[in-house]
This record gives sequence, structure tokens and C-alpha cells, in this order.
Amino acid sequence: MRESVTLTEKFFEVINHEGVVSIVSWGQNEPHIVNTWNSYLHVTNDERILIPAAGMHSIEADLAKNDKVKLTMGSKDVQGLFTTGAGFRIEGTAKLLATGNDYELMFNKFPFLTRVLEITITTLKQTL
Amino acid sequence: MRESVTLTEKFFEVINHEGVVSIVSWGQNEPHIVNTWNSYLHVTNDERILIPAAGMHSIEADLAKNDKVKLTMGSKDVQGLFTTGAGFRIEGTAKLLATGNDYELMFNKFPFLTRVLEITITTLKQTL
Repeated sequence: MRESVTLTEKFFEVINHEGVVSIVSWGQNEPHIVNTWNSYLHVTNDERILIPAAGMHSIEADLAKNDKVKLTMGSKDVQGLFTTGAGFRIEGTAKLLATGNDYELMFNKFPFLTRVLEITITTLKQTL
Repeated sequence: MRESVTLTEKFFEVINHEGVVSIVSWGQNEPHIVNTWNSYLHVTNDERILIPAAGMHSIEADLAKNDKVKLTMGSKDVQGLFTTGAGFRIEGTAKLLATGNDYELMFNKFPFLTRVLEITITTLKQTL
């Protein structure tokens, strides 16, 4: 198992408030960006992030060429580095899961999903 | 003057609620993503979007090679296409302004800015 990157208390405080998450992937040409909600993120005990995916076809095509992703998320309701409003940027790698325990767990919470986007975190940076 | 791309009422409803905006740029290597807040966006009469920039050095370096950007924004408090929660993706071109009327206007609202990121919209798509 990968060593913990220690998601911070502030990170969990942010994702416990509602907000927009952006996920960026890139293959050979221009990058793609899709959104989800803070409340849709499920953090596993070993600090992977699971996200319900319905659509995300541009991301899927990019991941076939390059599995790196960048994510950002934030909340204006959490005290940040500069003022009220905190945000994070995550870099990592991603995989789309269509079977398995993590898929079942997420499908029970989000019956609209067709796959689960699993993010393995490389770096976490508080930007705001 | 560029023809209007007709920003929708729903778009203005979204940015009148607080939320995270993501801005993606890409030069030669991996893309960069930075965030701002819905409340920091200023839409001009000719539908350019002005955003206070402090930092944004990765974006600046990318723009020197490629002026295309993608932005997303949303609000969980606005009725969307599928459920409660609406979001938009904008594609356009960007420039950093350090002087001029638009710079002065924004500097008066956001005294912390060092430049203004001016987005000229190519396409607007409601994604959520």
C-alpha cells in the first residue's frame, strides 16, 4: 500500500462544504475539464478519492493516453490562507472502475453512475 | 466589436451565487489550473469576462505560447439540467491586462490584483 500523503483536516473541512470540483485530464491535444460536487467525493481509508462518473468520455479518452490528472476544489465558507475561502489542488493518477468493491460501494450511494473515477493522490496543495 | 455569444440568464444566476471557478491553460507541456470565485467575475457589456489576477504565473507562461483557455463554474444552489446544481464550461482566449480602463475598473474593486485576466468567450456550454 502506498504511503499516506496525509490529507489535512482543512481538506476534509473544505469537502464537507458544498462546492464545485474540477478535474483536468490531458492526452495529446488540448486538455479536458469536467466538474463534480464536493459532496460526491468519497475518500477511502488509504486516501484514494472515488468519484461517480456518468459520461466523462473526454476524460476516458485522455486517460487511455495519459493517466495523470489535476483536481481543484474549494469552499468560500471555510477560512483559507488569505481570507475566508479555502481551496486545494491535487495532482495524481486516475483510473475508471466498472467493477469491484469500490464500484459497488459507490454505486449504492450514486445509482446514476456508470463507472467510478478512482484518483490516487501524488500531491496535495492548499492554494487558497 | 465581436458578435454577442449571448450569455444566458442561467449563467448570470450561477455567477450571482458563490462558488469556485476553475481556469485551465496549456502551453507545450501539461496544463495548469487555477481557481477564483464566482463573485470575482466581472462581465462587461460586450460579454468579456474580467478576473482579478494576483500570481497566475503558470497561466501567464502558458498564454505566451497559447492564448486558449477553458473555464468552469457552478453553483449547487441553482436549478440545473438534471437536478439542483448548475454548471457551465466556457472556452475562449485570454490576455493579461496591466493598464487601461478595464484594469482601472477592476483595480478599484479588487485592490489586491496585479493584472486583470480578460477572457473573450468563444463558446458557452451548460454542463450541469
